[in-house]
Amino acid sequence: MIRVAICGASGYAGIELIRILARHPEVELVALTSSRWEGRSARDAVGVGGAVGRLRFRSSVEATPDAVFLATPAEFSLEEAPRWVERGALAIDLSDAFRHDDRAVYGLTEIARERLRGARFIANPGCYPTASQLPLIPLVEAGLLGEGPLILDAKSGSSGAGRRLDDSLLFSELMDNHYPYRVGTHRHVPEIERGLGRAVVFTPHLLPTRRGLLVSAYAPLATGASAAACHALLAERYRDEPFVQLFESGEREIGIASVVGTPLCRISVSPIEKLGIVQIFSVIDNLLKGAASQAVQNFNAALGIEETTGLS
Amino acid sequence: MIRVAICGASGYAGIELIRILARHPEVELVALTSSRWEGRSARDAVGVGGAVGRLRFRSSVEATPDAVFLATPAEFSLEEAPRWVERGALAIDLSDAFRHDDRAVYGLTEIARERLRGARFIANPGCYPTASQLPLIPLVEAGLLGEGPLILDAKSGSSGAGRRLDDSLLFSELMDNHYPYRVGTHRHVPEIERGLGRAVVFTPHLLPTRRGLLVSAYAPLATGASAAACHALLAERYRDEPFVQLFESGEREIGIASVVGTPLCRISVSPIEKLGIVQIFSVIDNLLKGAASQAVQNFNAALGIEETTGLS
Amino acid sequence: MIRVAICGASGYAGIELIRILARHPEVELVALTSSRWEGRSARDAVGVGGAVGRLRFRSSVEATPDAVFLATPAEFSLEEAPRWVERGALAIDLSDAFRHDDRAVYGLTEIARERLRGARFIANPGCYPTASQLPLIPLVEAGLLGEGPLILDAKSGSSGAGRRLDDSLLFSELMDNHYPYRVGTHRHVPEIERGLGRAVVFTPHLLPTRRGLLVSAYAPLATGASAAACHALLAERYRDEPFVQLFESGEREIGIASVVGTPLCRISVSPIEKLGIVQIFSVIDNLLKGAASQAVQNFNAALGIEETTGLS
Amino acid sequence: MIRVAICGASGYAGIELIRILARHPEVELVALTSSRWEGRSARDAVGVGGAVGRLRFRSSVEATPDAVFLATPAEFSLEEAPRWVERGALAIDLSDAFRHDDRAVYGLTEIARERLRGARFIANPGCYPTASQLPLIPLVEAGLLGEGPLILDAKSGSSGAGRRLDDSLLFSELMDNHYPYRVGTHRHVPEIERGLGRAVVFTPHLLPTRRGLLVSAYAPLATGASAAACHALLAERYRDEPFVQLFESGEREIGIASVVGTPLCRISVSPIEKLGIVQIFSVIDNLLKGAASQAVQNFNAALGIEETTGLS
Repeated sequence: MIRVAICGASGYAGIELIRILARHPEVELVALTSSRWEGRSARDAVGVGGAVGRLRFRSSVEATPDAVFLATPAEFSLEEAPRWVERGALAIDLSDAFRHDDRAVYGLTEIARERLRGARFIANPGCYPTASQLPLIPLVEAGLLGEGPLILDAKSGSSGAGRRLDDSLLFSELMDNHYPYRVGTHRHVPEIERGLGRAVVFTPHLLPTRRGLLVSAYAPLATGASAAACHALLAERYRDEPFVQLFESGEREIGIASVVGTPLCRISVSPIEKLGIVQIFSVIDNLLKGAASQAVQNFNAALGIEETTGLS
Repeated sequence: MIRVAICGASGYAGIELIRILARHPEVELVALTSSRWEGRSARDAVGVGGAVGRLRFRSSVEATPDAVFLATPAEFSLEEAPRWVERGALAIDLSDAFRHDDRAVYGLTEIARERLRGARFIANPGCYPTASQLPLIPLVEAGLLGEGPLILDAKSGSSGAGRRLDDSLLFSELMDNHYPYRVGTHRHVPEIERGLGRAVVFTPHLLPTRRGLLVSAYAPLATGASAAACHALLAERYRDEPFVQLFESGEREIGIASVVGTPLCRISVSPIEKLGIVQIFSVIDNLLKGAASQAVQNFNAALGIEETTGLS
Repeated sequence: MIRVAICGASGYAGIELIRILARHPEVELVALTSSRWEGRSARDAVGVGGAVGRLRFRSSVEATPDAVFLATPAEFSLEEAPRWVERGALAIDLSDAFRHDDRAVYGLTEIARERLRGARFIANPGCYPTASQLPLIPLVEAGLLGEGPLILDAKSGSSGAGRRLDDSLLFSELMDNHYPYRVGTHRHVPEIERGLGRAVVFTPHLLPTRRGLLVSAYAPLATGASAAACHALLAERYRDEPFVQLFESGEREIGIASVVGTPLCRISVSPIEKLGIVQIFSVIDNLLKGAASQAVQNFNAALGIEETTGLS
Repeated sequence: MIRVAICGASGYAGIELIRILARHPEVELVALTSSRWEGRSARDAVGVGGAVGRLRFRSSVEATPDAVFLATPAEFSLEEAPRWVERGALAIDLSDAFRHDDRAVYGLTEIARERLRGARFIANPGCYPTASQLPLIPLVEAGLLGEGPLILDAKSGSSGAGRRLDDSLLFSELMDNHYPYRVGTHRHVPEIERGLGRAVVFTPHLLPTRRGLLVSAYAPLATGASAAACHALLAERYRDEPFVQLFESGEREIGIASVVGTPLCRISVSPIEKLGIVQIFSVIDNLLKGAASQAVQNFNAALGIEETTGLS
């Protein structure tokens, strides 16, 4: 059994990590940290049963486990993650502290699988970057996208913002509401642009849902390229991927509700081109494929465990 | 007092018409038609009090009133609206039956005000076209937009679809969900393109809210144009408009919740340009500025009544 | 024109007061106080137009107006409300600071109308007490209720809790959730018990909605009394009330959505008795009949203005 | 491997059965029936991967499997379930067709475990009866409840009503809404009363959520009994149950969100007695402990498989 600790285990991504790792057959959860829930049991706080349910949240991890998931703020991760690596643990950091740092492997699993094998330090991608890059990186690499602005209109539920006590995140303020935020300045933009190797116009909007994230991409086609070619390329690229599903011109098939609670990314390519634009939609659960389940995929990939273990 | 009938008064836009016209000081509501609610009183069905509350829904309008609002399906309007015009009533049709028909004035109030004065037949704009055209028509006319794809990523609550018994509109299917629909084929596209005089990529998405509609426009700037110039032009154009409010780079100020229940259109222009694109956001209540309140604005404009009457 | 100030005008009830009083034909709004929004205009913050839209939120009211609405925390009201009364203004306090204080008239309008005429200091009832007392006081007074526990199972949207930055009021925590709170200890219990003259078991539950409040009352019938007699009594009692509507055995007719945005209280009495119990349901908009619109009803009643003015 | 078929697999409970049984280590899913989705794959419709994802929905089950779950309307189950039993399959029916029929074991797992062992025909309890009976049956049996009305005020999300095309279940009608329904006449009443051996006042209310169900019970205490005694009895009774969790006077701990997506029933007993009443709250996911997960618990119990298999 691989002995695993979760730091920041009472955050929304941390809770999902507990739920996934509690049923992972090769994992023994040995420590959960949280200042908010210090002293409470996992059973009471999160509802999990068995031995994990008897674990209590602590302020810190004492002995060095085999692997540490950090679902902590970037400032905390920045200090702590390298320490765990030095002590010999596999560190998987869910913050954006190391996503542009060569010490860590950037863990967009389906794209980075080769580099993940044997890795000891993994920077887990952000939620928006995951949903943006999975459909677009293959198209960019194949030369199917042309010049002209690449526009990403993104929508996400509230849990992406964490459990911050901010007026804008109150139920009374967000319920029945919807609006763009951090227009032109979201901190995920450099991560997306680095992954795609080109500039993008990326605009996130807040949805009145807890979970789920949709990216609507408006991408200029290269000369001679077509929506059909984009669809065919993605179908070929992701044919054997257990957690990427491709649809033709989906509506409800690619609704966020179709992926919430799952480790999936669903993608559709609209067959209708207009003004040289192809429309590509991708949806994920921001807390799973956009955070916790992708972290466990990376954990499995790094340790040579079957990648779907604990996730199917 | 102007004697007014509402056809299709039990639909979502029809109900809003009842509420607005019940408090319009120059209107006497004389007839409400509905097959769904035939025989019920307006008080029981809609909660309005006074004389209007005692009106009962009927299957048809008997005597010819001074004005008729048709909140009916397009097929019904197509037959009925011209008949009311022939009989001498002012007809205001909320369907899309006459939006491309020269017999009717296309009632985007702030743009068409001159043509509305004295009109006897008005085609009320659609909800998506209203929110799309109000910010963009002045920019197109001023030459501030350049070549390249004009992209409209639109999001609307469920009431825009009416009270149709469709599996996709069930609470259990739409709650916590969000997805694009009728990609590239929405029936509002020609209406928007006619108003703007250019092709657009328009993609609607369904929001898990009852009301409210946001259009996120990604518009190519003309050479020498800037986001600041776009903002200045709209500020000037709409300075004295009671129902159009301009914001600088809004987030919650242009959330759909800020306009639901109001006759307003709120617009913001992001000051950040990137890749030659200016981002413009506009929000309305799809049932009010996108339907019922704009219809009453048009009624007031046609009859020479102060335009905000019944709406402020 | 009656010169009116609103203290605490950026709270949820305060915002509703602005909207109502902005269209009240006998009121001139002269001051709005708020620490949160100090310096902002009412147009930007709340969307109202005209002269009221140009009012700015200030930290305090300077000149003494004719009337002051206090939508402020109880501690603030406790000090301020009596001062305004001393200075000769009509004071209407929406907090619970004076609901048990003989200096103020307890303003459950339909019950207290006689005492309100000419009043200079009014304690506006709480939201739960309003919905609880309107159907039950007439039944208690008529002797239709018997011994045995009177159970009030109440459900309310989040806005009743105000805009507090509390973890439990975050969107991510309340969305898709529902639970009882302050079981047996809610501060509204003494207010309800005083109004009814008997002890009650009152249990509030939080709904995942912004507005709306339902009280499901399970009341023991007196010997010889019946559900039909209860219905008949309430029908007689409220026949001419503009803002109380009685239904027979309602379902959707008494859904909270049927009263949100209105000054109404809707009541139904189930005709089915079982185990000696009659079930009575009442719904209000907690921010309107449970706060702002009832305050304006009381204002009108105190000053001898037609009670529905500004509200219909 | 136990070969299993699911009839009515495209209903909300049926979909949950697919998800659970797809990861049950001793089950091979061999057939899914659905008229709605006939011909579609489970991967496209439900998102499950692997071999189950390649199963297609069919109109009927051909070969006789080892076990059949019927998530079908009662009329269908009434005919089909006994046929499967005759052919030698274990039949677990989720409708209410056999809940009062001695041929089938009534599968409230924690109460009926002894009778379930080796059973060949199981009637799965309804969602409201499950949440009502789990806390109350032990109290009734221990004589802790006294005379006087036992009141159950219940609240459930929309998925309990299935995917019916009914006007009241449209998103635009239910969103932001809440109301009682079938007051005094709900078809679950006899099932609850049979389980408790006494009459109840049971009133369901519709919540604007997809899932989750709360029962607020107001129960008269027997002479000498106390809330503390009720809590102690339930703590003892359910101490070793993996899927029943007891809380002291919970609020958010017993919110419906704490059990949605889990096979749990969470219960709290308020320590505050008033007017001789003890308040007991219980929450479940209506589609899991109220349907699919309890059905799999029963399947496991009948076949002598560890009861939490596939569920933890």
